Amino acid sequence: MKILGIDPGTATTGWGVIKFESGKFKVEGCGCIFTPAKQNQAIRLAHIYSELVKIIKKEKPDVVAIEKLFFINNIKTAMTVGEARGVCLLVAEQSRVKIFEYTPLQVKQSLTGYGKAEKSQIQMMVKMILKLKEIPKPDDMADALAIAITHAHCCGASGFKEKKY
Amino acid sequence: MKILGIDPGTATTGWGVIKFESGKFKVEGCGCIFTPAKQNQAIRLAHIYSELVKIIKKEKPDVVAIEKLFFINNIKTAMTVGEARGVCLLVAEQSRVKIFEYTPLQVKQSLTGYGKAEKSQIQMMVKMILKLKEIPKPDDMADALAIAITHAHCCGASGFKEKKY
Repeated sequence: MKILGIDPGTATTGWGVIKFESGKFKVEGCGCIFTPAKQNQAIRLAHIYSELVKIIKKEKPDVVAIEKLFFINNIKTAMTVGEARGVCLLVAEQSRVKIFEYTPLQVKQSLTGYGKAEKSQIQMMVKMILKLKEIPKPDDMADALAIAITHAHCCGASGFKEKKY
Repeated sequence: MKILGIDPGTATTGWGVIKFESGKFKVEGCGCIFTPAKQNQAIRLAHIYSELVKIIKKEKPDVVAIEKLFFINNIKTAMTVGEARGVCLLVAEQSRVKIFEYTPLQVKQSLTGYGKAEKSQIQMMVKMILKLKEIPKPDDMADALAIAITHAHCCGASGFKEKKY
């Protein structure tokens, strides 16, 4: 199974594609979609859209696993993250890829067994689980890979039945 | 000038197209894009996307005027409104239509001269300004028309220079 993990954001949308077969992981591709702060929001969203379309066409994931946020301090941030997330959900839906959503709490629990794990612990686990030489950078890319791993853990345990979006 | 006003939301996205020429208004079309609550968010966003593409193709607006929110009580609401707004911004950008944003405060000031006007006052002004027989329903459609009127007032006064998104 090929899983595309997405950590959506207007400035940086992290993505990572992992293959999960017979309990083994392989990174197929990962990166970030960056958009310049000086551009207006609509142009940035159109860029995220077109890049994500390309990624899905190239990588052909079986599922998309995307971050779902409930707690953001700032309403303005919630709105702009929502805008980027909306575009990511749209691309996945238009590409007919199944979508699964995970909260940061679920990602932390899945990777470390501890819901209050630090960001650095998550990153270390991503490196270990995917047998990488270094912690993937930037953070948004590591987060995207962590979301993809979370889905692999969940579907590995429950055969896709749980947490379907 | 043809202005498409949009009041974005996941359950209901209101829209209204008005023609504004020589200080006179004419409603060219208006309506709401509804999505059922039982559908998942990605399907709802894809529906908003495809409907809005159709509306823009049919109505050929010169500009899109869209609601911009800074204050929402609830983070979850901010996220889902953001998702719908992101899709609306995306469609406008992909359709190469200029986008202008207005806050509820700006809409209230523009229509009534008073930033704390009640919703009912705004709706009454929409009816009067557009010479309608009745107050347009549902509210989201009236709000979309109010945003379009706000843009007409602003660009009428400043020739497009102000508030460009």
